[in-house]
Amino acid sequence: MRWVLPDHIQDALPSEAHQLETLRRRLLDAFRVRGYQLVMPPLLEYLDSLTTGAGQDLKLRTFKLVDQLSGRTMGVRADMTPQVTRIDAHLLNRQGVSRLCYCGSALHTLPSTLTATREPLQLGAELYGHAGIEADVEILRLLAEVLRLAEVPASRIDIGHVGLFHALAARAGLVPGREEELFDLLQAKDVPTLQVVLDDVAEPVRTALLALPGLYGGPEVLERAAACLPQDEEIAGLLGELRQLAAALADLPISFDLSDLRGYHYHSGIVFAAYGADSPAALALGGRYDRVGEAFGRARPATGFSLDLRELVWRLPARGEAAGILAPCVDDAELGREVAALRARGEIVVTALPGHDGTWNEAGCDRQLVKRGDRWAIVPLQGE
Amino acid sequence: MRWVLPDHIQDALPSEAHQLETLRRRLLDAFRVRGYQLVMPPLLEYLDSLTTGAGQDLKLRTFKLVDQLSGRTMGVRADMTPQVTRIDAHLLNRQGVSRLCYCGSALHTLPSTLTATREPLQLGAELYGHAGIEADVEILRLLAEVLRLAEVPASRIDIGHVGLFHALAARAGLVPGREEELFDLLQAKDVPTLQVVLDDVAEPVRTALLALPGLYGGPEVLERAAACLPQDEEIAGLLGELRQLAAALADLPISFDLSDLRGYHYHSGIVFAAYGADSPAALALGGRYDRVGEAFGRARPATGFSLDLRELVWRLPARGEAAGILAPCVDDAELGREVAALRARGEIVVTALPGHDGTWNEAGCDRQLVKRGDRWAIVPLQGE
Repeated sequence: MRWVLPDHIQDALPSEAHQLETLRRRLLDAFRVRGYQLVMPPLLEYLDSLTTGAGQDLKLRTFKLVDQLSGRTMGVRADMTPQVTRIDAHLLNRQGVSRLCYCGSALHTLPSTLTATREPLQLGAELYGHAGIEADVEILRLLAEVLRLAEVPASRIDIGHVGLFHALAARAGLVPGREEELFDLLQAKDVPTLQVVLDDVAEPVRTALLALPGLYGGPEVLERAAACLPQDEEIAGLLGELRQLAAALADLPISFDLSDLRGYHYHSGIVFAAYGADSPAALALGGRYDRVGEAFGRARPATGFSLDLRELVWRLPARGEAAGILAPCVDDAELGREVAALRARGEIVVTALPGHDGTWNEAGCDRQLVKRGDRWAIVPLQGE
Repeated sequence: MRWVLPDHIQDALPSEAHQLETLRRRLLDAFRVRGYQLVMPPLLEYLDSLTTGAGQDLKLRTFKLVDQLSGRTMGVRADMTPQVTRIDAHLLNRQGVSRLCYCGSALHTLPSTLTATREPLQLGAELYGHAGIEADVEILRLLAEVLRLAEVPASRIDIGHVGLFHALAARAGLVPGREEELFDLLQAKDVPTLQVVLDDVAEPVRTALLALPGLYGGPEVLERAAACLPQDEEIAGLLGELRQLAAALADLPISFDLSDLRGYHYHSGIVFAAYGADSPAALALGGRYDRVGEAFGRARPATGFSLDLRELVWRLPARGEAAGILAPCVDDAELGREVAALRARGEIVVTALPGHDGTWNEAGCDRQLVKRGDRWAIVPLQGE
């Protein structure tokens, strides 16, 4: 059984591969005309560089290999965002704004869900060097546009704010290990356990943290949050950022979820997850991760999103490959010109190798070139 | 030094990444209109499936990983050809001809030369199901066309025939280990050692094997070969195949080298290597590998070629990225329409985020949109 693949690993056969390639080009072109420059980081890096700023989860999902040239441990990338951040921080070294995009395979040791692939085709866009809300607005609009171009429009984009959680956790005076536990409980909206864990936290922080899992819905959530969270300058500022987003993106299907801290562990500010109709899993994740550049020795504001192109294509209706035109394998200058002209127009013209009559339909042809007098004409494929 | 990459591993920064992407599209489009359907096999497979039919060299170059789901050993592909053969043999399962193409990263544990990358971006085309010389002619013409499209035209395509070597080796009655040794000596054109190794081989086979390293040059080599190789039906047939190629490809810069068995160890018949001007290393390798499908349980004739897209791009003159147009970050419906129209025509329009005056040239802009009366005009970028 040498042709069986490992679980959660797939081939893309011609019709799916063509859909992936078409969508890849459409989305990279959309990035390009908006000034997002393509970069291609490598599949392999030293492990410490690859998992800089990443949480334990991503470290466990990274395949490790020994470098036979240096003896050091390398990893196969499980996420391209830290790689792109390294490129912004150290290779481009720009003073102003960098807009970068990428598309490539990543590998995961274990699938993230029962149906997820272990080889996502990760596509994303990142904006570096601008701390203001304009960058978050641009990235969220770009995400919505990308999903529209993919014909899987977002039915909901949930926005949260990791900064709000960190501000409250700091006031709660938790030891670092417990902050991580609290993060996971909030993400799971596990209120009963939260009540136990927060038992010895002083008011009003205890009430505020317990309120987070209930703070989800439309922009009105931000008013409820203002009413039940501590009224200090920092928290008012963070809620103000969310209010600016709500105003700037009023035409998009955005909603807020103040305990949804989903995304990668390196996120530091506004975070978001986009959902399609009828899909419980997020199609794209993103947000602020201002601290990752710092780990590479150059603090730069950063925001962006990424998605798995395979997941998008699996949601599209399957399309057959475009049908081709069969051309006989004869030496005829007029035929040669006709075939070249058809191919230049993007038509698929397949040369008939001798001895395979009756199989060209299987190879994707539905028409053929035949000589009528001294001209070549395209007629339906006969005798298949 | 978290930003240092392992040796022989590279990032592609914006201008190189754009050249790679442009060339990738141009070549995949050329395959497509000729009926070569795109497939995307996975980066990871079980090791025994990945190295089916491959020689020891490829096995040593394959990174091994343990599958946490099955406990079995997996490999990261070092060559995509056996994967595409698996797809032809078991997934498409066509009775007639299959034409397939692919483009993806492969990883090598060690670089193949002092300057080679360990992450080639392998691009190739394969033709399955046709044993006749027409398939070899088509693949060689396609290779020449691909190098022309890449603006690195072939200055020489060397053609050899592994079948000729196997026919002579069988007549020499060598034990299997010595056949491998002989193969390597011929490839290295190491005549002194060959003379020692062939000392106990009977005539006329000994003379024939010793003659191989000298049989290189234009099509006249085939006449010299006919004169000094045994005159039996099998060898005459193999030389006849090469004569047919010489006749069909007289307009291409082909030459013959009957001891050049280069390429992967799985090759079984006609093999070839294409060279550019001023490049000692081959740009592309290919040939027949009719036996690999057999190892997957379905014998199918097969021929094709592959190359490293990075190697091609490294030979091109570096081109700067196309320059962009800076657009102010203001809410203006007329500006929005103008920006959308420019982007739809493929122009790069970059939104100016506030506070970064003086950095937009660095971000790739050389023009800007400014309001003149009630119209938006494109003028050279000022004050940068």
